[in-house]
Amino acid sequence: MSKHNYIRALLKQPVERTPVWVMRQAGRYLPEYRKARKKAPNFMEFCKQPELACEVTLQPLQRFDLDAAIIFSDILTIPDALGMPLEFISGQGPVFPEPLRDEKSLVALQEREPLGDLQYVMDAIKLVKHELADKTPLIGFAGSPWTIGCYMVEGSGSKTFSQVKRLLYREPTLLHALLSLLSKHITQYLLAQVKAGADSLMVFDTWGGVLSGPCYQAFSLDYMSEIVAGVKQEAPHIPITLFTKGGGQWLEAMAVSGCDALGLDWTTDIANARHRVGNRVALQGNLDPCVLYSSPEGIRQEVKNILDQFGSHPGHVFNLGHGMYPDMSPEHMQVLVDAVHEFSQS
Amino acid sequence: MSKHNYIRALLKQPVERTPVWVMRQAGRYLPEYRKARKKAPNFMEFCKQPELACEVTLQPLQRFDLDAAIIFSDILTIPDALGMPLEFISGQGPVFPEPLRDEKSLVALQEREPLGDLQYVMDAIKLVKHELADKTPLIGFAGSPWTIGCYMVEGSGSKTFSQVKRLLYREPTLLHALLSLLSKHITQYLLAQVKAGADSLMVFDTWGGVLSGPCYQAFSLDYMSEIVAGVKQEAPHIPITLFTKGGGQWLEAMAVSGCDALGLDWTTDIANARHRVGNRVALQGNLDPCVLYSSPEGIRQEVKNILDQFGSHPGHVFNLGHGMYPDMSPEHMQVLVDAVHEFSQS
Repeated sequence: MSKHNYIRALLKQPVERTPVWVMRQAGRYLPEYRKARKKAPNFMEFCKQPELACEVTLQPLQRFDLDAAIIFSDILTIPDALGMPLEFISGQGPVFPEPLRDEKSLVALQEREPLGDLQYVMDAIKLVKHELADKTPLIGFAGSPWTIGCYMVEGSGSKTFSQVKRLLYREPTLLHALLSLLSKHITQYLLAQVKAGADSLMVFDTWGGVLSGPCYQAFSLDYMSEIVAGVKQEAPHIPITLFTKGGGQWLEAMAVSGCDALGLDWTTDIANARHRVGNRVALQGNLDPCVLYSSPEGIRQEVKNILDQFGSHPGHVFNLGHGMYPDMSPEHMQVLVDAVHEFSQS
Repeated sequence: MSKHNYIRALLKQPVERTPVWVMRQAGRYLPEYRKARKKAPNFMEFCKQPELACEVTLQPLQRFDLDAAIIFSDILTIPDALGMPLEFISGQGPVFPEPLRDEKSLVALQEREPLGDLQYVMDAIKLVKHELADKTPLIGFAGSPWTIGCYMVEGSGSKTFSQVKRLLYREPTLLHALLSLLSKHITQYLLAQVKAGADSLMVFDTWGGVLSGPCYQAFSLDYMSEIVAGVKQEAPHIPITLFTKGGGQWLEAMAVSGCDALGLDWTTDIANARHRVGNRVALQGNLDPCVLYSSPEGIRQEVKNILDQFGSHPGHVFNLGHGMYPDMSPEHMQVLVDAVHEFSQS
């Protein structure tokens, strides 16, 4: 058995207390992060400097009693390494000025081998692992094929996802070819992260929730399952967590994907989720991040609610149902982390 | 029994064919709508001219064999009538330059009686009813208290809903006071629409899906139930449809709210929804609007899928799971409407 509560919880083994980490725990809500970011204002350039990525990965662990670190990176490193120019525009998020909309653009990408250009991620992982000295486990991650594909086809975030869905309904073969290509690269990318030292892996499916049930299965979950199978073949001991934001209606299907744990957003009742997935997978989540705007007492109450709802079974990793927002208070994050440990020990 | 298939379907009575109407069926995808809008480029000013609202309400019925009309208006007419200045900024949607964030702003609103300033909606309904001559039923509508409240507190649309949730978690009493006030006005507003001639009512809860289950119940559904009870007390014969976008996890709770029908977005499997709500309510929905980007044959296939999934029980109103987008093709809308009738007659 691993010495880490976080790893044990993912494997549904007994823990001393419920482990906690928080999506975007290294982020703009931390003044030390904002300071570090000034060393390389361009976001992708920042990600590509292993020393800086290492520095900010470790920042939240110096403040809070967190049970896991997650490597500082972005879900769009793969299209960047495939040669699609990527810009981060303030207030608009990531933008591909030349989105992928036709077969010609796809063929151009098919010739690329992105893994070599992603070495900076592996270098950052190695640096972090050295610093952590196995006191805290490190999470590696990737975006899901569907989510990365959404950005590549839309060219940016979207309210309607009209472009990628136009492809889905009109040219499904082309979209499947793109998603297959991404799945292959993501599998290799995650395995390289394991080789570099990642102790666990997470796949972020930020946009799976905009699909109908059958389309979610065919265009998102099937590819994530393929990735899980590919990773498990070479690294069977590494726990994998799948997180589909807005995926609360499809937990049963996700639970048989071969992964070890499911991330839940806050719209799903965690007791109900536990009932639905049974003992097949561990669960990660799922406090509404906006609870951090509440008072310390309010935060403690909501943390207790989630822990009580999950119950005393093994298999719970506490997290928010989405990432931290920039205007949140580090002091309130402290209250959250301590409350998880306090209430789950008793 | 009503002579209208649409009304009969809402009441779970037998129909000759599945009725169909489409959210935002009067909208920018129609060239005649874009032309009419030029007569009053300011969106709220346009809404406030009953002749123009009547004209565009009827436009889709002149093109398509639709089973219901919906009065052309906006969910933000109530805060506008409460005296909150509202602007529609191109590409950004509705904006309140002075959002509601404290008790003082709420107290100022509490002194207003908005119904008198909403007479233009009733006038538009009367004009439409005269033109329809009872050949097609007319739907009246309002936004849900939570959804209108979100816009009033955020000041605009939001990705995170940080402002309104800050209020929810820090000052729930203030938020409840706002939602109570809105519920009271919405009830009166809907009853006035019935008095003016609306044959059925719909409540649009566009943002209920951003809440946790318990918060959805307390801050959205409870208020919608209050509205349903208030309307039913004075107009028991008018069917009411509740639509919470992203509400697929809460259908059981919605089904016991006293309403007659639930609107479904496309992420929910309609066969599963039908199983979960049993015979308690009719269902409206739920094609992914992006299916309209597909080929005519693709659209027909997806329409058939939804009809097959729902089955031959009474109680289905066909619709999209969300409104039409401006770049959609009227010809494809035609294919959709005709396919619903063709496949449900056989």
